[in-house]
Amino acid sequence: MDPDLSALDEYLDETDTDGYLLDADSEDSDQYYLSGFDAPDPFVTLYDGETHLLFPRSLEFGRAKREARAESVQRYVDFDHAELVDEYGSDEAVSHVLARFLDSYGVDSVAVPPRFPLKTADGLRARGVEVAADTDGVVTEIRATKTDEEVEHVRVAQRANERAMAAAEELLADATVADDGTLEHDGETLTSERVKEEIEVTLLRNGCSLDETIVACGADAADPHDRGSGPLTADEPIIVDIFPRDKTTKYHADMTRTFCKGTPSDTVREWYDLTERAMDAAFEALEPGATGEDVHDAVCDVYEDAGHPTLRSDDRTETGFIHSTGHGVGLDVHELPRLSPNGGELEPGHVVTIEPGLYDPDVGGIRIEDIAVVTEDGYENLTEYRKRLVV
Amino acid sequence: MDPDLSALDEYLDETDTDGYLLDADSEDSDQYYLSGFDAPDPFVTLYDGETHLLFPRSLEFGRAKREARAESVQRYVDFDHAELVDEYGSDEAVSHVLARFLDSYGVDSVAVPPRFPLKTADGLRARGVEVAADTDGVVTEIRATKTDEEVEHVRVAQRANERAMAAAEELLADATVADDGTLEHDGETLTSERVKEEIEVTLLRNGCSLDETIVACGADAADPHDRGSGPLTADEPIIVDIFPRDKTTKYHADMTRTFCKGTPSDTVREWYDLTERAMDAAFEALEPGATGEDVHDAVCDVYEDAGHPTLRSDDRTETGFIHSTGHGVGLDVHELPRLSPNGGELEPGHVVTIEPGLYDPDVGGIRIEDIAVVTEDGYENLTEYRKRLVV
Repeated sequence: MDPDLSALDEYLDETDTDGYLLDADSEDSDQYYLSGFDAPDPFVTLYDGETHLLFPRSLEFGRAKREARAESVQRYVDFDHAELVDEYGSDEAVSHVLARFLDSYGVDSVAVPPRFPLKTADGLRARGVEVAADTDGVVTEIRATKTDEEVEHVRVAQRANERAMAAAEELLADATVADDGTLEHDGETLTSERVKEEIEVTLLRNGCSLDETIVACGADAADPHDRGSGPLTADEPIIVDIFPRDKTTKYHADMTRTFCKGTPSDTVREWYDLTERAMDAAFEALEPGATGEDVHDAVCDVYEDAGHPTLRSDDRTETGFIHSTGHGVGLDVHELPRLSPNGGELEPGHVVTIEPGLYDPDVGGIRIEDIAVVTEDGYENLTEYRKRLVV
Repeated sequence: MDPDLSALDEYLDETDTDGYLLDADSEDSDQYYLSGFDAPDPFVTLYDGETHLLFPRSLEFGRAKREARAESVQRYVDFDHAELVDEYGSDEAVSHVLARFLDSYGVDSVAVPPRFPLKTADGLRARGVEVAADTDGVVTEIRATKTDEEVEHVRVAQRANERAMAAAEELLADATVADDGTLEHDGETLTSERVKEEIEVTLLRNGCSLDETIVACGADAADPHDRGSGPLTADEPIIVDIFPRDKTTKYHADMTRTFCKGTPSDTVREWYDLTERAMDAAFEALEPGATGEDVHDAVCDVYEDAGHPTLRSDDRTETGFIHSTGHGVGLDVHELPRLSPNGGELEPGHVVTIEPGLYDPDVGGIRIEDIAVVTEDGYENLTEYRKRLVV
């Protein structure tokens, strides 16, 4: 994929900066997006209208020359690294190498993302290079708007995600309830860990990987970031939140369903219906020109009107709707745009989650999440998975 | 686990600095190690003899209070965040919140790791806080020395790794050779991807996960960081390098074997034997008081004596022994100490890989890797997996 970097050209022009600089491994999605190169150790990418890569060692050199989307690929050794180590020591030598690399392209000033490494920046400043951290990271901002090809990558990942969700739902549906209320499957206690394993193996078999999955029941589920552990129990909501990455394309998907084996309480039923309504309200607000805050407000309105606290009504609340409505999804599972307070204007090509939820340790947690792309005249939901509470 | 932070206390004392500051999510192992808290979004940890956590939002607050290894857990809202946003805008408000947080503990100067985010540092400096990036990261240095509990975590991960390696070796051993020389299994072409899937599913079933595995054959294998793809072929070396993470403890293992189905060439046999000798030489040099450079030199000696180029003999070579001898393994799969030029003194509790290898696109690649812990009187190899070339 050839990204459209015209916004980066404009940014450099407007800020009167010679280049944009990254120093990161390709787990950093800006780095992967700008360099087109996948490497486990940090390397440097300079963009000055063209893309130039610099590697500490020779190890990645050959592969970078073949695979990277770059006009040039160089190594420290190409800038007299050994001599500079003798003269300045190995630590300071790096900043001299980087300064020479920038100088070879006539670059005296660089913009960098907010999380650019301080030591590299201080080293360059000591060599007389101007280094300014930009606000959200202009490459991160560019990444928010997906090409059709990128949307397709997310869609494909969501299909794999749906197979994994189906495997989880089936395990729960097939479970029986023991006398003490815990779920059993194949004669064994059905745990959060067992369901996660099924999800993860299904994803692997479908070309995806993931570091974490959430299968959280009862009080665990009342904490949106609790991954869940131990036996699952009947009559309580079980949140299943899966956010895999396609191993080939590196794009993510994201989906949440809440299931209940047995009989949910009236409160859980009410929360589930309300969350479905909050989701509908969010989708109604989702269109180009609306802001992420508009979409978030639509969800807060539904919850607050029903008497639930939100972070908008009480910024210290630990129950109710205690997170934002959604986030961008792409190379990162959490990226721009934000569907939250201060969330900016939505544009066609933004891929976002819509994930309202309610939480209280005394009740548990409810969350439902789809993923959608903003289109010219509204949105397209990329999720094809049904919603049902009782399995 | 309670880490021994006395070296951090000494460091702050010696550098006359009030505190050590981190701003990262828990994928950053320094953050996970110091805070004892696992969270997907960045948060701030201050160590000033005690550990203090600061979260942008309320989302992680409850769980952090329960789970983190910290004397205090606070949120932006505890430092008048909303008022500061009104006064300074949301961007600048963050640095005011952080400065107030530090000030509440009487901290005017902080040391930070080399990859600390520039924007946070510049924001604090603008508020009058001294921020200095240290060289390797003192917490990263502390992490290099493992407690018995941490060594046990690595050992357990290596056992799972061995089961995955056995699954891969079995697939290769069971394969047949088609007329065109490609490997077949169960009537289908045996690909790098198929072997990786088997490895990854085995790891998942054993409580481990991983983002990447290397199963590289032929010219792919001549590039140490090529993950490999496509059909595997007979009579060529196949490098299998597996570096999983235990999902419970978060500690890694690391192991490489090189297999050949069919008849390896004389060159491949010779390289394999030489690499085993290089490995023996490295282990002979591995003991407390020796440096990482000593161990690396022992490997370079073996290869150079046999007429192969190394990066020591030619820092531009792209064939021969073109990487370092090894690296530390723990919460990160690549961490301190380094077994490479400039690798420092080895100490009991250092867990390191020993992984010599030879590479040439015309031959392929050979690499053999074990993992070991440096002990009071030498080392203990944590790997129990046999080495055999022909399967």
